[in-house]
Amino acid sequence: MARGAAAVIVGNELLTGKIQDENGALLIRRLRACGIPLRSLHVVPDEVDAIVQAVAQARSVADHVFTSGGIGPTHDDVTVRAVALALGRRIVRSEEMSALIRTHWESEPPPATFRLADMPQGAELWKQEGLWFPVLTCDRVYVLPGVPQLFRIQIETVLARMEKGQIHLRALYLRSDESDIAGALDSVALAMPEVQIGSYPTFDRALDYRVKITVEHALAAPVDDAVARLLVVLPAGALVRME
Amino acid sequence: MARGAAAVIVGNELLTGKIQDENGALLIRRLRACGIPLRSLHVVPDEVDAIVQAVAQARSVADHVFTSGGIGPTHDDVTVRAVALALGRRIVRSEEMSALIRTHWESEPPPATFRLADMPQGAELWKQEGLWFPVLTCDRVYVLPGVPQLFRIQIETVLARMEKGQIHLRALYLRSDESDIAGALDSVALAMPEVQIGSYPTFDRALDYRVKITVEHALAAPVDDAVARLLVVLPAGALVRME
Repeated sequence: MARGAAAVIVGNELLTGKIQDENGALLIRRLRACGIPLRSLHVVPDEVDAIVQAVAQARSVADHVFTSGGIGPTHDDVTVRAVALALGRRIVRSEEMSALIRTHWESEPPPATFRLADMPQGAELWKQEGLWFPVLTCDRVYVLPGVPQLFRIQIETVLARMEKGQIHLRALYLRSDESDIAGALDSVALAMPEVQIGSYPTFDRALDYRVKITVEHALAAPVDDAVARLLVVLPAGALVRME
Repeated sequence: MARGAAAVIVGNELLTGKIQDENGALLIRRLRACGIPLRSLHVVPDEVDAIVQAVAQARSVADHVFTSGGIGPTHDDVTVRAVALALGRRIVRSEEMSALIRTHWESEPPPATFRLADMPQGAELWKQEGLWFPVLTCDRVYVLPGVPQLFRIQIETVLARMEKGQIHLRALYLRSDESDIAGALDSVALAMPEVQIGSYPTFDRALDYRVKITVEHALAAPVDDAVARLLVVLPAGALVRME
C-alpha cells in the first residue's frame, strides 16, 4: 500500500498564534482530493534540530514529505539546511538557481539573496508556471515557501507529478451511544483491519444522530463488505441513515 | 528556561479533512494568552505507534504535553494505551473512574463503557467543574477528549494549574526587501540568541510594508535592547512604523 504523504509546517509565527496556519489546511484538502493519504502533520519552530527531527520522522511514515516555510534569505530561514541534514546530504550553492536569481533581479542582487541558491546536493528544481521561483525537491521532500500565495501555486506543481489514488467512503449515522456499539465495531474492525473504521460521537442535541461511523478504503468492495457486516452486528434500530 | 508545552492531536478525521481541527487552534491561543510557549503541534492518525512516537517526541522538547482525541470506548480510541506505552507504564483499571462511570450512568453501563476507566498506572484524575468526566493526567501529559466542547472545558482545568509566563513582543514594519536586511538581522540575532527574532515578508501590495520583524522574549529589557540594535543596523529609511 502507498504510504502517502506527511507535512512539516515550519513557523514560530504559527505556534505563537501570530497567524493561523492556512497551508496545512490547504494541503489536507488537496491531498484528499487527489486520493493521497496524509499520515502526519507536524508544526515545528524555525529551529534546525526541530525540523531535522520532524523531517526524519515524516520520512519514516510517508513516501512524500511536504515542508512549508523557513525558506528565504534571513537568519530564521533554516529549513533547507535542516532538510539537507535530515537527508544526510551536503549543502551546495546551485548554479542553476543563482542564474535564476540574477535573471529575476533587475540590478545586482544583494549578496544575501544568493542564500536562496543553497540546497542539498542532488536536489532538483522543478520549473514553476507563473512564478520565477522553482519548486525545490530532493528525495521526495518538497521544500515549499510558507507564504500562502506561493505555497498554493507550488503545491499544484508537486501534485501534478504524484500518482493519484482513490478513496471510497461511506458513513453510517446512529442513534446509539458509543458504548452500546463498541463491541460491534470491534468485531468488524478486527475482521477487516485493512478497512479504516472511524467512530465520531457528537454531543449536539440538535442533530438526529449520536455517533457517526465512517468506513474507508481505496477500493469499493471492502467498504461495501464492512458496511454489510456492520449492519448485521449493530443493535436493531440503531441506524438513522447511511451516506 | 521553561520548555513550555507541546500538543499531540489525534484523529484520522483531521488528516483526511473530514473535519477541520479546532482544538489545536484553541490550544495555541490559550497557551499564548497564558505566556506558555508551544514547542510543537503534531497531528497524527488513531494508531498506537504513531501516537507513542509523537508523545515521546513531544516530551523530549516540552515539559507539558497535551493530547486531544482518541479517548472513548471504541476500537479507534487508542490514545490512553499509547500514552501509557510512551511513559513506560502499565495500563490498570481505575477504581475511582469505574465508580464515576457507575454514578453517571442511570442503569448498568454497557461493559465497553469501563474501557474509559483504563489508564496508565499512577495517573491522576482531576475533578472537572461542570463535567462528570475528570481530566486524566500522568507525568505532565494531559489526555483530553477530542470533542471540541469537552476539550475547551478541560483545557482550562489544566491551564489553571500551570505556571504562567509573560511574553514581550515588538514588531517593526519595513519597506525593504528581506534580502536587503538579512545581514542586519543576522548580526543582531547572532549577538542576542536568547531573543526570538522573526522575519515575515508579505507580497500583498495593498500593505504599506514588505517585511514585518518581530522581537520576542519573556522579559522586556532584552526586547528593547534588540530593537535598539536593529534600528542602528537596518538600512536608513527602512522603517515604516513600530508597534
